Amino acid sequence: MALTADLSSKWLLVSEPAPHVLHIELARTPVNAFSSEFWHAYGALFDRITAEGRDVRAAVLSSAIPKLFTAGIDLADAAKITTGGLSGATQIDGARTSLAMLRDIKDFQHAIGAPERAQFPVIVAVHGLVLGLGIDIIAACDVRYAAESSQFSIKEVDIGLAADVGTLAYLPKITGNHSLMREMAYSAALFSASDASRMGLLSRVVPGGREEVVAAALALAGVIAGKSPIAVSGTKRILLHSRDHSVAENLEYTAAWNAAALQTQDIPESLAAAKGRRAPKFAPLHRSKL
Amino acid sequence: MALTADLSSKWLLVSEPAPHVLHIELARTPVNAFSSEFWHAYGALFDRITAEGRDVRAAVLSSAIPKLFTAGIDLADAAKITTGGLSGATQIDGARTSLAMLRDIKDFQHAIGAPERAQFPVIVAVHGLVLGLGIDIIAACDVRYAAESSQFSIKEVDIGLAADVGTLAYLPKITGNHSLMREMAYSAALFSASDASRMGLLSRVVPGGREEVVAAALALAGVIAGKSPIAVSGTKRILLHSRDHSVAENLEYTAAWNAAALQTQDIPESLAAAKGRRAPKFAPLHRSKL
Amino acid sequence: MALTADLSSKWLLVSEPAPHVLHIELARTPVNAFSSEFWHAYGALFDRITAEGRDVRAAVLSSAIPKLFTAGIDLADAAKITTGGLSGATQIDGARTSLAMLRDIKDFQHAIGAPERAQFPVIVAVHGLVLGLGIDIIAACDVRYAAESSQFSIKEVDIGLAADVGTLAYLPKITGNHSLMREMAYSAALFSASDASRMGLLSRVVPGGREEVVAAALALAGVIAGKSPIAVSGTKRILLHSRDHSVAENLEYTAAWNAAALQTQDIPESLAAAKGRRAPKFAPLHRSKL
Amino acid sequence: MALTADLSSKWLLVSEPAPHVLHIELARTPVNAFSSEFWHAYGALFDRITAEGRDVRAAVLSSAIPKLFTAGIDLADAAKITTGGLSGATQIDGARTSLAMLRDIKDFQHAIGAPERAQFPVIVAVHGLVLGLGIDIIAACDVRYAAESSQFSIKEVDIGLAADVGTLAYLPKITGNHSLMREMAYSAALFSASDASRMGLLSRVVPGGREEVVAAALALAGVIAGKSPIAVSGTKRILLHSRDHSVAENLEYTAAWNAAALQTQDIPESLAAAKGRRAPKFAPLHRSKL
Amino acid sequence: MALTADLSSKWLLVSEPAPHVLHIELARTPVNAFSSEFWHAYGALFDRITAEGRDVRAAVLSSAIPKLFTAGIDLADAAKITTGGLSGATQIDGARTSLAMLRDIKDFQHAIGAPERAQFPVIVAVHGLVLGLGIDIIAACDVRYAAESSQFSIKEVDIGLAADVGTLAYLPKITGNHSLMREMAYSAALFSASDASRMGLLSRVVPGGREEVVAAALALAGVIAGKSPIAVSGTKRILLHSRDHSVAENLEYTAAWNAAALQTQDIPESLAAAKGRRAPKFAPLHRSKL
Amino acid sequence: MALTADLSSKWLLVSEPAPHVLHIELARTPVNAFSSEFWHAYGALFDRITAEGRDVRAAVLSSAIPKLFTAGIDLADAAKITTGGLSGATQIDGARTSLAMLRDIKDFQHAIGAPERAQFPVIVAVHGLVLGLGIDIIAACDVRYAAESSQFSIKEVDIGLAADVGTLAYLPKITGNHSLMREMAYSAALFSASDASRMGLLSRVVPGGREEVVAAALALAGVIAGKSPIAVSGTKRILLHSRDHSVAENLEYTAAWNAAALQTQDIPESLAAAKGRRAPKFAPLHRSKL
Repeated sequence: MALTADLSSKWLLVSEPAPHVLHIELARTPVNAFSSEFWHAYGALFDRITAEGRDVRAAVLSSAIPKLFTAGIDLADAAKITTGGLSGATQIDGARTSLAMLRDIKDFQHAIGAPERAQFPVIVAVHGLVLGLGIDIIAACDVRYAAESSQFSIKEVDIGLAADVGTLAYLPKITGNHSLMREMAYSAALFSASDASRMGLLSRVVPGGREEVVAAALALAGVIAGKSPIAVSGTKRILLHSRDHSVAENLEYTAAWNAAALQTQDIPESLAAAKGRRAPKFAPLHRSKL
Repeated sequence: MALTADLSSKWLLVSEPAPHVLHIELARTPVNAFSSEFWHAYGALFDRITAEGRDVRAAVLSSAIPKLFTAGIDLADAAKITTGGLSGATQIDGARTSLAMLRDIKDFQHAIGAPERAQFPVIVAVHGLVLGLGIDIIAACDVRYAAESSQFSIKEVDIGLAADVGTLAYLPKITGNHSLMREMAYSAALFSASDASRMGLLSRVVPGGREEVVAAALALAGVIAGKSPIAVSGTKRILLHSRDHSVAENLEYTAAWNAAALQTQDIPESLAAAKGRRAPKFAPLHRSKL
Repeated sequence: MALTADLSSKWLLVSEPAPHVLHIELARTPVNAFSSEFWHAYGALFDRITAEGRDVRAAVLSSAIPKLFTAGIDLADAAKITTGGLSGATQIDGARTSLAMLRDIKDFQHAIGAPERAQFPVIVAVHGLVLGLGIDIIAACDVRYAAESSQFSIKEVDIGLAADVGTLAYLPKITGNHSLMREMAYSAALFSASDASRMGLLSRVVPGGREEVVAAALALAGVIAGKSPIAVSGTKRILLHSRDHSVAENLEYTAAWNAAALQTQDIPESLAAAKGRRAPKFAPLHRSKL
Repeated sequence: MALTADLSSKWLLVSEPAPHVLHIELARTPVNAFSSEFWHAYGALFDRITAEGRDVRAAVLSSAIPKLFTAGIDLADAAKITTGGLSGATQIDGARTSLAMLRDIKDFQHAIGAPERAQFPVIVAVHGLVLGLGIDIIAACDVRYAAESSQFSIKEVDIGLAADVGTLAYLPKITGNHSLMREMAYSAALFSASDASRMGLLSRVVPGGREEVVAAALALAGVIAGKSPIAVSGTKRILLHSRDHSVAENLEYTAAWNAAALQTQDIPESLAAAKGRRAPKFAPLHRSKL
Repeated sequence: MALTADLSSKWLLVSEPAPHVLHIELARTPVNAFSSEFWHAYGALFDRITAEGRDVRAAVLSSAIPKLFTAGIDLADAAKITTGGLSGATQIDGARTSLAMLRDIKDFQHAIGAPERAQFPVIVAVHGLVLGLGIDIIAACDVRYAAESSQFSIKEVDIGLAADVGTLAYLPKITGNHSLMREMAYSAALFSASDASRMGLLSRVVPGGREEVVAAALALAGVIAGKSPIAVSGTKRILLHSRDHSVAENLEYTAAWNAAALQTQDIPESLAAAKGRRAPKFAPLHRSKL
Repeated sequence: MALTADLSSKWLLVSEPAPHVLHIELARTPVNAFSSEFWHAYGALFDRITAEGRDVRAAVLSSAIPKLFTAGIDLADAAKITTGGLSGATQIDGARTSLAMLRDIKDFQHAIGAPERAQFPVIVAVHGLVLGLGIDIIAACDVRYAAESSQFSIKEVDIGLAADVGTLAYLPKITGNHSLMREMAYSAALFSASDASRMGLLSRVVPGGREEVVAAALALAGVIAGKSPIAVSGTKRILLHSRDHSVAENLEYTAAWNAAALQTQDIPESLAAAKGRRAPKFAPLHRSKL
């Protein structure tokens, strides 16, 4: 199957700019506001790619809208949340409303966390405004690049709630300055790419705008797509485990995992290619047919 | 929607013997062998009930086959596993085969763990043989009843593998005699309902056979179905959390959860019903419409 | 200071039936119903003993009321909880009510968990009914004895809520039959001392009633009070840690702890007393004066 | 009650420079040395504010002493520690001394950790020397600002001990350079605000001295105090949980918590205020009256 | 190499009563008191078997001394511990003594925990007295059998210390009655095989004495030795992980592990042998030559 | 015993450039490639120093080879790994190969993690290339200094595998920019000392080359060697615990540990020396003679 066949939808443009590299563009005009339909589609796209065993080895996520990455959640949906309407629960009592909301929140978390379940790294390339849900989205990706003019805000307190689909779960673990991170989370202040970089949120601040940052991300994706998919997917799996476990637990898990992974043909192929000064060639990772 | 409408399928008989009580019967002749089709259907049934918001308040799981609960995994599928055929992976190398198997195992675990994701308690009532996968299945249920003549075996070592879809994850936590539990896991010995009881695996050993144990389980399900679903589902959620976290972590989680749950109408309704010496009447738990 | 000086209050009778042994009796007629005033006093009593450095080496907790241990929470308070009245929160919105309730629940948990913070073992000796909060109370003690006619119920679902001050946090860890434990938690059924014993909740079922079970508990307390308080309090500290951590983590903690504890005079004193066939004599554990 | 009524004491000056903003100044001449009396008062101040339900929405902590933030622990007390005198334990043996010291250390930790238990963010603004205990104190705050001339030292090894009231527990989690952090912890070297910033310990290095850094912190506090207290306190609660748990555990906890928190009037009020281009107005968080 | 060649030493008798079954007998007259030399030899024996890759598939541990299993630690060594002599630390100060003791305790724990590091199950068969260290020793084994007349005591508090080489780390996890377990740990009371069984500590109480219980254990070892060593060692590895991790973490680890383990020839061999009604034949597990 | 007597070996040069300071130089020409013999020797060196109780108070690790720190694993060994040859397992099946590899990986991890088990801080000073295993090695050290021209690469994916001896376990915890860290792990890109510093991996980038960076590291080691070894080793122990546990767990552990450590003579000695404006003099930490 062609890598991108049938993957594009009205708000999600999918292309294959280089072999095994997927480019996903958010394209819900005017501001990439995330309605529940949009976020469900977003999560489903990633999960489908994995389920169908498509041979993707790296992906870039960006916005197709010139002026911004995303303004965050669709306010119409946010309004529904405050009345329980989103969950369809008749408001018999606070407990039933809470229980229905809990399920909605978990669905929402599951969708936004989809890049983490992918077997390949996801590089997000942002420009312009990255507000509210935008932070949750980029936090769940592997690598973050930003155009120099990007502006970020953990906007949720400005609409009266604590971020609950990833920002507060990820940031304390993936960045290196809790003081700055909490300051931004409590104040909903706009912060620059430079401050985001100082916080440890970004790999690179790319001079220029949307085109430049996407180009840089695609270049990285191209490099990664040339590596052994056994090595890259294993690295991702182990890093995710490491983030959430002690060193001792991770070493144990890694040993169990690599004991099998070292039996790959990618190792002799890598060594032979290096010796022969040629690009290695790796078989795809297959997906179960169950 | 009627509670059981459209739920029955060729191998899974579903009925509603009492209000809000679901009875699920395993019915794949001759021995309830679990092929991958069967276990997928099994997991999907539980998940569908929850997804559709059906007003189930307790369920009983049993076997429709007179002589046994289940003989375990379908050996045809087991054979496929050993060759990687189940996962459709061409056997390029051990690492790719492992990666495909890992996904198959996680799917399998997810299906067998479905009762845990239900909002209502699941009572399993066994009779006759409960072999291999049968132990994984009952371990993921809330309450276990057995007819006195039941016989159990953690059979996996007899086909050359370690149980990997629940038995070894659950038993160390839900029973109270690791010595006996490990003995059975290492030896694949058949053990009686009396030994299972001594291990802490069973609530009750019911005199008689299939009919008697199912009747006892349905009686318990009827009692539970008469209770507040907010209280019962909250109890289940908290107990599952407690099993896997420290006392301090669980108390913190419980406080967060109950802070909302105490705002239920079920409390004044329960108190009023007790005062008026009548049965309380509780609203269903709604499911999100997202 | 005399061991029990000033400790007794209207609902909590405190005596010293043997050297270093404290006997605490719940005495709020007619049914030891726990109002918030009562549970605050209960928690404060244990914490005060520790704070004042009284030389208690074992305690027995029982009920002074002939027919029962406790009927559980005071229903007047329970009613207040359902309206948020207990917390004094005006009901501006569900979130503020939840936040106030969360604090109340944590205060409540802190009070009921007080025996765990004591440096000495607490043996609870129950008779008659042990309902609802009664289970939370005994679960937080070290050792549980019951008169043979005792009857237990995890009563909370019967008033529309999930137990939240200890029962569901402790039982999965301190007993050995999750099936039976969940059955009782979901159904609020009355269960006998024999069933409690089968669940792993009790050390001993004592023939007879209140007097007999208290006598048995005091005998055990007397034995413990004769042991090294460094050894006994260290054992308690390590066991509490062990319950909530992995074996490896506990061994590390125990080594850190015992590295100092082994420098006690109680070891040579114990050895000398054993050699001399006399009772050892141990210094008290002092409390800081900060 | 006025926000600051009766809160000031001899060494702790408390004022309300802006609505709902508390300013706490350390004022024990000559060097803000922390005696046990001082640290007890420090912890008690924060706990009292929460216990009394005062409507504080952000706090700034700074030093009233022109030349420094704090020189750390009072050496007179440190001397007492080394002889066990602080704990009042007669030195019968090393084990009893250890046990008494353990309690003193835990009391000390509890006092210094008080800002974490507050429902509002605490911004610490330092200038001059921040030595020893000073690092423990700022590590337990939410946000750290420093005047450019500040100098820091994890001083404890210089008096022969490992820091035990917070520095070593917090720094590995809230900063982003373990190499630099360990270097400072092992060497007790003085380091500049610039190095502290590079370590990830500070949000901002403020040009100027005490006045400037306090002004900057008060400005941030003013911004935070204008936000929904449900949103801000929820964000704090979730971030503290996130720091100490896996992503999956935090998402589960957050969903349980926000399921209730989303039922706040602060959300419609925030949306309406944004629409009407006016400042939102939020009700206080009430404290239980138990 | 012959399975037992060179393994026996003065206090540890090693034989191979059946193929791949090791029998280890404690034989330090008169009471199997464990001096530091003895426990080092004990731990080293197990570690050597694994290091040398001997094809052991099950082991039985028992006492060669007719009247008891072990009286516990050698009192001469215990005396040395109290003076720090065991560690050779000159007693400059309490801190240095503690640090030296910590290392000694960890060495001791490492030795006694050796059966856990073995790739094969260890069945311990006890008779007579099992005192103090005896409980630590049996707790670290996989399966425990006791002759009916066995008597147990968690003896440590009687010599003024808390058990620190396994008893308190293991018992809360491997048994099912914390009340009874704590009672025994606080009181150092002698308890019978029947009480040990009720606590969940034993698989079987064997009528008769030393010969009978050893025979029963050897019979079980013979059964286990006939199973696939990949399946048995995997089951052990997973059960040890499961004891110390959440269900979700264990399922993840198990999937990673079994993804490779399912590629064993033992599965087709098991299925073929079952079909052919013959005993399966399994290759040994090799040990690295690094 | 002289501090360095007999410690040097063919590939590991050991000297004592200042009192209590150890300098270890990697010296396997031409590129410090790590064969299994080399890494075993490396781990054994650190473990021997601790086992023999040598009075080392700080160590510097560097490369004796002018142009680089290390090129990583010896490719000859890497080739053996891919065929299972390293472990000596005949390749009967994937499962047995995996099991043998798991043991090899754990041995390898244990060797490379040796600096963590030392009681003294280890400062690594790198120059030139730091490839593959080089990152694992420096990640397990306490403090990292780099010459300005150093170049780093998490090289493993380039030979088809995921790093499994420390890099992926440590980096997510000890650095502060997951985006940059994952980018380097997925792409195997060369990165500069400046990028390593931005990632949070380095304390200092030292102008100049090998001599300058080693001099700077030795200067730091000299400072640390002048501090109380009780304080420094306790700080290391607590920081390692803190990295892998929650704040609450670490505070509990620290209190248990420091309760004994505060009884050191190093505290009065430190205070007296400071008062007398002289250098303090500290006794060594003794090692057990068991």
